[in-house]
Amino acid sequence: MIGIVGGSGDFGQGLAERLRRIGEEVVIGSRTPRDEFVSNEEACVRSDVVFLSVPPGGVADMAYELRDALAGRVVVSVAAPVVFREGQAGAAPGELALAEITSVAAPEARVVAGFHTVSARALADPDVPLDEDVLLAGDDAEAKAVVADIAERLVEGRAVDCGRLEVSRWLETLTAVLLNVNRRYKTNAGVRITGLPE
Amino acid sequence: MIGIVGGSGDFGQGLAERLRRIGEEVVIGSRTPRDEFVSNEEACVRSDVVFLSVPPGGVADMAYELRDALAGRVVVSVAAPVVFREGQAGAAPGELALAEITSVAAPEARVVAGFHTVSARALADPDVPLDEDVLLAGDDAEAKAVVADIAERLVEGRAVDCGRLEVSRWLETLTAVLLNVNRRYKTNAGVRITGLPE
Repeated sequence: MIGIVGGSGDFGQGLAERLRRIGEEVVIGSRTPRDEFVSNEEACVRSDVVFLSVPPGGVADMAYELRDALAGRVVVSVAAPVVFREGQAGAAPGELALAEITSVAAPEARVVAGFHTVSARALADPDVPLDEDVLLAGDDAEAKAVVADIAERLVEGRAVDCGRLEVSRWLETLTAVLLNVNRRYKTNAGVRITGLPE
Repeated sequence: MIGIVGGSGDFGQGLAERLRRIGEEVVIGSRTPRDEFVSNEEACVRSDVVFLSVPPGGVADMAYELRDALAGRVVVSVAAPVVFREGQAGAAPGELALAEITSVAAPEARVVAGFHTVSARALADPDVPLDEDVLLAGDDAEAKAVVADIAERLVEGRAVDCGRLEVSRWLETLTAVLLNVNRRYKTNAGVRITGLPE
């Protein structure tokens, strides 16, 4: 079972549909459980892998609140410290990445950062193949392999291991670059890493 | 004429050879002029486009020292705030990007940030095609177009306009991600942006 916390946004909805299409069972959590949404805590407890798709300002509190429910689980941090000023996307990172904050707030969660370069808008249209890689970072190699396996079934490219969790600092801000590219080229850009061995 | 300041490193040497192969005249500046190297100031004054390939700690001083020689010229900032701790690559960015610092220190330079995702090691072997894009950021559209034209003759991919100079903050730290990928996969990785219009 794969849980999505904050699954009512574009990213979470698109991800849920795409996960179902590759045969995964999905449970979506929300602050306000209703219809197909369960509570965030229930979404975590019922899952082996939990995607945290929460606005950047809510990451620390949400991870802390769910720390028991996330303990021992593979937790995918997809949040990016994006800000908009005068309509332009930028990043306002802190000292630590949001994925690192998640790991501090929920110390028994097996945090993997990733999917920062996958457009929520692209994800939201499940009929369009995702011509891109997924970039991952994390300190738990086994957890990273679990997420890599899911990622490679979602995109046409591959899961690229970018190293330890600290590297998420520079993956998370990459979202701001892509939002600027999207605006300029009126598209939903992604990233492929070239030069990797076959 | 294209000038390279700090052209005695891997990046500068590889770039110089590749620029010559696409038919550009190149002049290389060095702190210690000798043999084929002229002074950094002369390299700037003789050029229309100047690549600043300087270690991150030297960027502010170098740009300030060369501010008159850089005035009115297209200046390509390739520096990245990379640091190594216990053999692992990371980034230690300041408030401003190195490209923004360059622009502050040399206010009449037409600064374009770019090439942060092009591996110095890959660049250094001019017989190997560069299967990647070049990501650019800058506030001077005309200068950016000049650099884009050069970039697209150097790589097999395209020059991607990532927006205004501020975006270089998140391009410069991307170098740290790629250095981690290089270490893990024993390669010289690059980036392609997917989803762009043809």
